[in-house]
Amino acid sequence: MNVTHLECANCRKKHDAGTLQNLCTECEKPLLVRYDLEKAAKSFAKDSLLSRKSSLWRYRQILPLENKENRVSFGEGWTPLLHADKLAATLPIKINLFIKDEGQNPTQSFKARGMSTAVSMAKEFGVKKLAVPSAGNAAGAMAAYAARAGMEAHIFMPADTPRANIVECEQTGAFVTLIDGLITDCGKIVAERKEEEGWFDVSTLKEPYRVEGKKTMGYELAEQVSGKLQFADSSKDKLKFAGHLSLPDVILYPTGGGTGLIGMWKAFDEMEQMGWIGSKRPRMVSVQSETCAPIVRAFHAGERFAAEFENATTVASGLRVPKAIGDFLILEALRESHGTAIAVADDELIQAVGEIGAAEGIFCAPEGAACLPALRKLIANDFVKEDENVVIFNTGSGVKYLEAFS
Amino acid sequence: MNVTHLECANCRKKHDAGTLQNLCTECEKPLLVRYDLEKAAKSFAKDSLLSRKSSLWRYRQILPLENKENRVSFGEGWTPLLHADKLAATLPIKINLFIKDEGQNPTQSFKARGMSTAVSMAKEFGVKKLAVPSAGNAAGAMAAYAARAGMEAHIFMPADTPRANIVECEQTGAFVTLIDGLITDCGKIVAERKEEEGWFDVSTLKEPYRVEGKKTMGYELAEQVSGKLQFADSSKDKLKFAGHLSLPDVILYPTGGGTGLIGMWKAFDEMEQMGWIGSKRPRMVSVQSETCAPIVRAFHAGERFAAEFENATTVASGLRVPKAIGDFLILEALRESHGTAIAVADDELIQAVGEIGAAEGIFCAPEGAACLPALRKLIANDFVKEDENVVIFNTGSGVKYLEAFS
Repeated sequence: MNVTHLECANCRKKHDAGTLQNLCTECEKPLLVRYDLEKAAKSFAKDSLLSRKSSLWRYRQILPLENKENRVSFGEGWTPLLHADKLAATLPIKINLFIKDEGQNPTQSFKARGMSTAVSMAKEFGVKKLAVPSAGNAAGAMAAYAARAGMEAHIFMPADTPRANIVECEQTGAFVTLIDGLITDCGKIVAERKEEEGWFDVSTLKEPYRVEGKKTMGYELAEQVSGKLQFADSSKDKLKFAGHLSLPDVILYPTGGGTGLIGMWKAFDEMEQMGWIGSKRPRMVSVQSETCAPIVRAFHAGERFAAEFENATTVASGLRVPKAIGDFLILEALRESHGTAIAVADDELIQAVGEIGAAEGIFCAPEGAACLPALRKLIANDFVKEDENVVIFNTGSGVKYLEAFS
Repeated sequence: MNVTHLECANCRKKHDAGTLQNLCTECEKPLLVRYDLEKAAKSFAKDSLLSRKSSLWRYRQILPLENKENRVSFGEGWTPLLHADKLAATLPIKINLFIKDEGQNPTQSFKARGMSTAVSMAKEFGVKKLAVPSAGNAAGAMAAYAARAGMEAHIFMPADTPRANIVECEQTGAFVTLIDGLITDCGKIVAERKEEEGWFDVSTLKEPYRVEGKKTMGYELAEQVSGKLQFADSSKDKLKFAGHLSLPDVILYPTGGGTGLIGMWKAFDEMEQMGWIGSKRPRMVSVQSETCAPIVRAFHAGERFAAEFENATTVASGLRVPKAIGDFLILEALRESHGTAIAVADDELIQAVGEIGAAEGIFCAPEGAACLPALRKLIANDFVKEDENVVIFNTGSGVKYLEAFS
């Protein structure tokens, strides 16, 4: 275990990693796990990855869990990075396009990653009851991991969340409450009731461990992009890493709470400190819906925080997050990376599901599909250039969004 | 490439493996791929698996594809074998219970395996248009792999197939026709129209390659059971195989067309010929619905073939196969393995979805969940005994069966 402490992402106050924590006790902002990365690097040669298990726990040296017995896992992570050549051929310039298919995770979304680490840590701390507000997929993931851990799951979702999310929670034994409101309203209920009910609040970034699971998307990208770029046409089953790992030039990430993007940005920093990558970073792009675009608005206004987006609505339910507690971390990553933030219309992103599906056979979540019209705009305004390596994140499977397809 | 020829599973007539084939030209029964397993064993040491890619293509030496460029893949296979201790604790005797979670495949079912190999081989043979009758999940998989291969997909499904299957096909660009009938009626339409339309018929076991993809479930079981039994409490990331690989004592497999079971039985035979396992076999159990149980009926009547089941109906859409072309192969495997066949009621299997979900957090397909009430009956009648290692196959994710949950 290489964890040294928890640190507030805003005021930098240190907190004890040996105690169950939610937000910073000083400023009510998210806590991040810090590691002794020099020590970690010694026991964690990147070439050792070539024979490790195909789950995010392959990165256990930079994950917070101490006792393996507390690992709550369905084999999440290590999702494929798929070439999207036929889709790329529909674009006006030639780029190397990849789709990171998070829909292949347990519970069909990237939310499984964060819940695996968060529920494992809750188990390590002896927690028995979990509560979470969710726009949909986090609920399904939390219900599954809580059941596997033998904990109670208390879930609060908007009443118009896709039915797949409601059914998966019910069938994995969660207590589901549907709310006439948005995820922010659900979060308020959890905050109000948690003390009396004895719930641990696993709202994203309101506990320190979901982001640790999600950061593994960044580690995987480095491993997989390195493999793809060096050995795309080789028949070798075994990859060998020559020198530093590679990262793509541009990452398009559909952004609701933004924890995946924040996590990847943290991963890149950790990898550099361990000597796995150099100082070069991908340009990070937040993709949102025009009808719920708080990050896009704040990015272009030059704000440090993003104000709540009024009357938020979008068929991409995971993007329906009008106010994200990690807003300042998302905005920092976009700016430091020389990235950007961009919004697309709901009819564009729904149409993109069918375009990606027909071209590549991947049935994307509407959130993931939003990256395609965003990419087209970024090519049109010369943000993405010829021959660049571009990764779009499909954060989940489209099969959970049947209501979006008439 | 270690393929020698194709062989009729019924009359043993040899067919050319270098030509696109459907059924045996002599007796209209399924063709199986045969390999030079002595040669294969020389280039395929089982310990080499410990650093191979996490997809079914890790077994490429005993798969039929010649040119890797024709591989059509989303990273299918290498699904987790999950301990189900809490579920096991609800049983009247102590057994080691595992769930092989095929719902984590691309397109959320084991059908991805067979379609990856079948569509890859179709690509190798230059096919441009595929057609398939399906009870649901095969359709979704075929549509996805055809799109990725750049082929046309023509799909025929019962009109009351779960909506998830219809939508996934549409969103991945397939031509979908809904039929007022069963999968057997859909199969007749494909057979009638395929010549005129120029379609290659990828009905299960009516071409030789889907079963090759599905057999990898048997190879994976051997690897994974060996790992679990030897290293369940170890913190080693690397498994080492000491001597022969292990297999479970009993396998419960929900049986529609039965190709998965046939494929695993073939895999065990191949592994023995390669010296990977000994002669001991798991007892194979076909699980069906009481309202569509042709194999159960034929098994207990001592028949070689299974007559068509009249008025077939079940909420477990993948089990709604009233007549399987591989019936005699399923029945052979059950008998040779000293296994059995057992039917459960629809209300039992639907209730089991929630039981497994609450105990283990796995949202099973109704087909997979059917194995739980079947297991309880097999314990009651002393077929499954104390301390045995039992694997139940969850063939897909429950998230595609929303209609089954009111």
